[in-house]
Amino acid sequence: MDEQARKTALRMIPYGLYVLTAGTKDGDKAAATINWVTQTSFAPPLLALGIKTDSAIYSHARETGALVLNILGKGQQGAAFAFFKPAEYADGKLSGEAVTWAANGAPVLESAPAAVELKVREVVELGDHHTFVAEVTGCI
Amino acid sequence: MDEQARKTALRMIPYGLYVLTAGTKDGDKAAATINWVTQTSFAPPLLALGIKTDSAIYSHARETGALVLNILGKGQQGAAFAFFKPAEYADGKLSGEAVTWAANGAPVLESAPAAVELKVREVVELGDHHTFVAEVTGCI
Repeated sequence: MDEQARKTALRMIPYGLYVLTAGTKDGDKAAATINWVTQTSFAPPLLALGIKTDSAIYSHARETGALVLNILGKGQQGAAFAFFKPAEYADGKLSGEAVTWAANGAPVLESAPAAVELKVREVVELGDHHTFVAEVTGCI
Repeated sequence: MDEQARKTALRMIPYGLYVLTAGTKDGDKAAATINWVTQTSFAPPLLALGIKTDSAIYSHARETGALVLNILGKGQQGAAFAFFKPAEYADGKLSGEAVTWAANGAPVLESAPAAVELKVREVVELGDHHTFVAEVTGCI
């Protein structure tokens, strides 16, 4: 297979800019910028997400299954950049971003135009990122 | 959960325009327009796809695991529209579209700017569309 042709083809598949968060106000927290998300079902509403297996958010997702997908808007590259490295919580801010808390406990970025609360339903353990199939359980 | 807020949030997740094909030149064929695709791994290259459970392409994907994802470009709404209904093969054309054949046997739309050959690795049987995790095995 021609590697360059493959890259060119796969780059034609649209991707987004998201910060996936997990944890609780009084416990551990994790957050990471991700790009690979698609809806896969209307009823129930399901999303498939690619999550890097060696990341802190991966461990949280496996352990608790409670996540928030913060959907970033145009001009939020700065927020996305902040979550390329491990999240730090200080002075009520997560890596410098003001947060509220979803019903499932996970942090919600106040600056995100939309966010959905997720419950992990299944994980496909293939590849350098595993595919999480998660149900949308709430909207923030 | 506020249905309208959920719809608004989920519509912020980008989606594409694809024709997913299966079958062989001398056997049955199936093709359907789909929108829900994301990459989920670099190594091996994996995609997650939402496929409607009551569709002909779903049966083919389950039975043979051999698919081609035709990635449509701008201005190809007409080709997408042609595959909203069951595919018909006549005069060497699939629902009016000229085709070639991938190494795995499935039809490739000549008009698609890019296409990848897929082998289904796992299926998550949840929801009105199931989530197929498929490996990119070739590029056309």
